[in-house]
Amino acid sequence: MTSLIDRLSPEGRNAPESGIVEVFNAGRGREDLIPLWAGEGDLPTPEFIREAAKNSLDRGETFYTYQRGIPQLREALAQYHQDLYGKTFSPDRFYVTGSGMQSIQLAVQAVSSAGKEVLVPSPTWPNITAAVEIHGARAVPVRKRAEDDGWQLHLEDIEAAITPETTAVFLNSPCNPTGWVAKEDLLKGMLELARRHNLWIIADEIYTLFYYGDEARAPSFYDIAEEDDQIIFVNSMSKNWAMTGWRIGWISAPPALGQVFENLIQYSTSGVPSFSQWGAVAALNDGKEFLAAQVLRARKGRECVLQGFQGVTRVKVMPPDGAFYLFFSIDGVTDTRQFALDLVRQTGVGLAPGTAFGVGGENYLRLCYARRKDHLEEAVRRINAWLPEI
Amino acid sequence: MTSLIDRLSPEGRNAPESGIVEVFNAGRGREDLIPLWAGEGDLPTPEFIREAAKNSLDRGETFYTYQRGIPQLREALAQYHQDLYGKTFSPDRFYVTGSGMQSIQLAVQAVSSAGKEVLVPSPTWPNITAAVEIHGARAVPVRKRAEDDGWQLHLEDIEAAITPETTAVFLNSPCNPTGWVAKEDLLKGMLELARRHNLWIIADEIYTLFYYGDEARAPSFYDIAEEDDQIIFVNSMSKNWAMTGWRIGWISAPPALGQVFENLIQYSTSGVPSFSQWGAVAALNDGKEFLAAQVLRARKGRECVLQGFQGVTRVKVMPPDGAFYLFFSIDGVTDTRQFALDLVRQTGVGLAPGTAFGVGGENYLRLCYARRKDHLEEAVRRINAWLPEI
Repeated sequence: MTSLIDRLSPEGRNAPESGIVEVFNAGRGREDLIPLWAGEGDLPTPEFIREAAKNSLDRGETFYTYQRGIPQLREALAQYHQDLYGKTFSPDRFYVTGSGMQSIQLAVQAVSSAGKEVLVPSPTWPNITAAVEIHGARAVPVRKRAEDDGWQLHLEDIEAAITPETTAVFLNSPCNPTGWVAKEDLLKGMLELARRHNLWIIADEIYTLFYYGDEARAPSFYDIAEEDDQIIFVNSMSKNWAMTGWRIGWISAPPALGQVFENLIQYSTSGVPSFSQWGAVAALNDGKEFLAAQVLRARKGRECVLQGFQGVTRVKVMPPDGAFYLFFSIDGVTDTRQFALDLVRQTGVGLAPGTAFGVGGENYLRLCYARRKDHLEEAVRRINAWLPEI
Repeated sequence: MTSLIDRLSPEGRNAPESGIVEVFNAGRGREDLIPLWAGEGDLPTPEFIREAAKNSLDRGETFYTYQRGIPQLREALAQYHQDLYGKTFSPDRFYVTGSGMQSIQLAVQAVSSAGKEVLVPSPTWPNITAAVEIHGARAVPVRKRAEDDGWQLHLEDIEAAITPETTAVFLNSPCNPTGWVAKEDLLKGMLELARRHNLWIIADEIYTLFYYGDEARAPSFYDIAEEDDQIIFVNSMSKNWAMTGWRIGWISAPPALGQVFENLIQYSTSGVPSFSQWGAVAALNDGKEFLAAQVLRARKGRECVLQGFQGVTRVKVMPPDGAFYLFFSIDGVTDTRQFALDLVRQTGVGLAPGTAFGVGGENYLRLCYARRKDHLEEAVRRINAWLPEI
């Protein structure tokens, strides 16, 4: 007799368990826990954002709303992009979604099908791969190389992976988990490649402001692309405004795709609560100061952990250029899943094992440094103290 | 040169536009509008539910949370089911989703694949069909028959539609849009059929309390099924507690599927905001009185519109046994899409055209009567007054 699980669709049955949750569960309930495994800071959403949502609830805005998002949020998104990229954006190209994750899912539905392939530079945030495979398509990893000056993605590796079934390339820069940032030359090459092969680019630039170069933000496809290039930008309120728990993201794509995304939203979650969207409007319109403080906090967190591991010979660190993770390896540690389980049980420090991040990430650990400095210092202290024991 | 749309996946490109939105847009901005097109009442969410969400926001519950839903909500769901069906339910079989719609999407992902078929009795709420086809599977309509004593679904029609590719049957009872309610005999036959052919049942019993028979609720698969039958129940907070805009639903399924649904939630929206979930907890635990009033209101609305159309010879009404819609036809009206557009432009009454509800629904109009009595009376008055002109 087959089990219930065996009777499910292969894509339902095979969707992978999050590689982080297992470690999370091992640490649940520890009082001295310092959780650095998630892509989440330790500050709650600022009060002015919460107030905006509460005011909307008080106004009784609890009915169905626009599938593409309330006009005020789409306008605020256009303005935010205008300020960030120094050019004009139409509100028509923004579609509000139920998270950056859902933006990815909808983008995948829009550009891939069973039997088709999406190229995914790896190591990578695992959810993109899972979203592609749940949709019945194939996520094809393209390995980034760990070179002396950090992670590198080579255009020729992307091009070599293209087959007649390839419909899209996913590019996440600044990158979770590696901290890698694509230079403008690479973006230009990618865009040229996509145009030549008629591929879609799914551009995840969620961490663009968490950038440790000289400029205020990372290089972007917005700097070089035309309005109607085949690029679907996926983004989220989560990281910039400490709104991880709100589940609000957006897609930015050519307005010609508006009806398609409206339909895909209709048939998945049918929109995002109005009252949550009013929180997002407040964040975009009045959250510049908080956002600058968030970025500064991550920058200081980065310095703190880099300094903490300096001179610890077993810890191999490549300073990240962007995002807010340290993706590092430890001499002698090959089973990072077991290491992360042991670490949290023994020391209360929660890291994400590299096994959660696909091909090429297996030997690494991910530490989120968008957190309180004293907690980061204490976490690094505990790790360094525990290392000699293993 | 092909357009951007042509370069999308077929399932993205072909997802249908909602047949209701077009009529909705035709009526937008009319001051005297009486909107009866949506499956939504006219009351905002009760204040005690909104307060519970606001209190959670005040507590700073703005972080990532459990993919399956906060424990308190899963317990409240178990208790709600226990009270309703008079047997014990484990919180482990409930998974919180971002809407009844998302519950359907996740169920479809769990049990179907490209090339597989899902049987969908029709006329039907169109979103189930769209969700199946976006996933690359095929929705196969099985026609309900309009007989003298109302809509009927025949088991032999279901059985005749089964092929080797069939993986699931969708059953919505009480039914949106027809108001049809499956009798227990039919449910037993369906369950027996599903067991024999190894099919999943996706059971949509969202309207179970909106039932106009003698009992307190409609017959349910819960009355006859075993814990581990291949049934995935999809449900929503929307209708019972006037929470359409909150986007919270749930799946009830054998606990053996828990990890699968956790994964599918992870890779679509990654959970539902904690603060919204606390609203749902309040609704389930303290919303019995409001719910009873909602049901009574629908019952009165039903009487009101039935009475209003009584004796109007061109209007053909089959009194609905459940849900809160009148699905009726008008002699001489064959293009219901055009009729609904003209009606809202000429009279300000918004109905949903039957063309939105698939095979067999084309000649009907759907009117939602879960609304204020004076508005319903006025709507019926306007329709009856306008009918002689067409």
